[in-house]
Amino acid sequence: MESGFKDTQIEDLTFAIIGMGLIGGSYAKALRKLKVKKILGMDISHGILKACLNSHLIDDMVEEENRQILSTADVVICCVYPSDIVDFVKANKEHLKPGVLITDATGIKGDMSEKIQAELPQGCEFIAGHPMAGRQGSGLAMAAAEIFDGSNYIIVPASHNTEAAIVWLEEFAATLGSKAVVQVNAKEHDEIIAYTSNLPHVLAVALVNSASYDDNTKYFIAGSFKDGTRVADINPELWSDLFLSNRENVVIEIEKYKQQLDKWCKALKENDAEALKDMMKEASVKRRELY
Amino acid sequence: MESGFKDTQIEDLTFAIIGMGLIGGSYAKALRKLKVKKILGMDISHGILKACLNSHLIDDMVEEENRQILSTADVVICCVYPSDIVDFVKANKEHLKPGVLITDATGIKGDMSEKIQAELPQGCEFIAGHPMAGRQGSGLAMAAAEIFDGSNYIIVPASHNTEAAIVWLEEFAATLGSKAVVQVNAKEHDEIIAYTSNLPHVLAVALVNSASYDDNTKYFIAGSFKDGTRVADINPELWSDLFLSNRENVVIEIEKYKQQLDKWCKALKENDAEALKDMMKEASVKRRELY
Repeated sequence: MESGFKDTQIEDLTFAIIGMGLIGGSYAKALRKLKVKKILGMDISHGILKACLNSHLIDDMVEEENRQILSTADVVICCVYPSDIVDFVKANKEHLKPGVLITDATGIKGDMSEKIQAELPQGCEFIAGHPMAGRQGSGLAMAAAEIFDGSNYIIVPASHNTEAAIVWLEEFAATLGSKAVVQVNAKEHDEIIAYTSNLPHVLAVALVNSASYDDNTKYFIAGSFKDGTRVADINPELWSDLFLSNRENVVIEIEKYKQQLDKWCKALKENDAEALKDMMKEASVKRRELY
Repeated sequence: MESGFKDTQIEDLTFAIIGMGLIGGSYAKALRKLKVKKILGMDISHGILKACLNSHLIDDMVEEENRQILSTADVVICCVYPSDIVDFVKANKEHLKPGVLITDATGIKGDMSEKIQAELPQGCEFIAGHPMAGRQGSGLAMAAAEIFDGSNYIIVPASHNTEAAIVWLEEFAATLGSKAVVQVNAKEHDEIIAYTSNLPHVLAVALVNSASYDDNTKYFIAGSFKDGTRVADINPELWSDLFLSNRENVVIEIEKYKQQLDKWCKALKENDAEALKDMMKEASVKRRELY
């Protein structure tokens, strides 16, 4: 692809954000703090776009009648559902700027990158990214520039990606505030995320959905229950999409997790204090490594 | 029992804290903020007591040679391991003030209350309490007055407890900052806590101990994994004690929990988006009720 904008200062770049939800809104707020040249916003809801414009999250709304302004964007960040990115590219490819870099923030990769690149005109490049920077809830109201601070940012290059694009996205992630930027292929990404992201969400939902939950539960909980269920409140539409797109891996992780629970049941039934202590000691060491 | 101190202002009361760990230290800090008359501290470690004295967490150290000052305490709060409370009472009952109220903070009750009361001289009363106010880690260094703010405080009265003692502990819990003070019997307490406290700790330890964890995990996690494993770093000695004292209930809760995971596996294997959404919607509603 053309070296394009990649040596340009971020202050001189125009970004287009597709989907102004929790993640899209957070990119907009972070980009505003970085004083980028211009932020364009696109969303299925005109009301949301209006709200973004009124609160100065974006400088321009990209809508049916003025789609051509998309061609002023050097970078396009897709923050829509995984299944909607290809549709966006198909519908808007003629408005994309030559040399544009398109990236995303979706939690599942598969062969998405190749599918999207196949739709793009010569000179346009799609590179998959996954900022590990969600939070509970959903929607624009939950957006915050701070979600990127100290976060992990996963870059998932495909065979078509240029070194220039990879390096630019690495530097962009660091500029956003990510503390670690790592590269893996799509297969590795989906396998790892099944454990580090999908599984914790399953566990939180399962905890609050246990048959033991009742109206009095709230009077008997402490931090452990609150933390363990914080992400039980997530967007069902988005997450059912994510879970099902990665279902084989998620099932494997749930089965592995159940093996741990079986170790607990065995130790408890056998009144085996040493086995319990060993599991807790192992966990303490590992947990501290996460900092 | 004698009505004793129960109409006395907290500023005029002397407290003795047995065990200056995370919880004992937190009581000391909270009582200091409440400007109580005097705080006595007792601990198996002279060094810890010295540290508490030096940092003005306590006013006096209760040690072998001056045990009699225990008799100046109107209220004794036992913050030692469940199994050690009876031993403390046996070893110190002759130093207890007539009319003294003794309470605890342990996460398991069983028949502890009756056992302790049976050891006490006439006029001394033990009433079981459980502030749902722990936090990760362990030890004096983790102590904080704030752990009680907005917490739940469970009172577990036994047949020997007086109305005056129950009312006093209710008011004391509220004074510490607890937002909800509830009463249940010991059997109910242990059954409920198996779900609301024991289980979340099991789940956190199991998540970080999964076979999928490796040295690179830290680069792929976000808030969901961090929150889901926060309490994986706990005191193995104390918690193996708690888990085993409540093992029948904990096993039941783990089995109930596994039923939820099985529902997830089934929905994922059957590619059943509606089933996933229903579970997530149910969880979102319940999670929001916790606030």
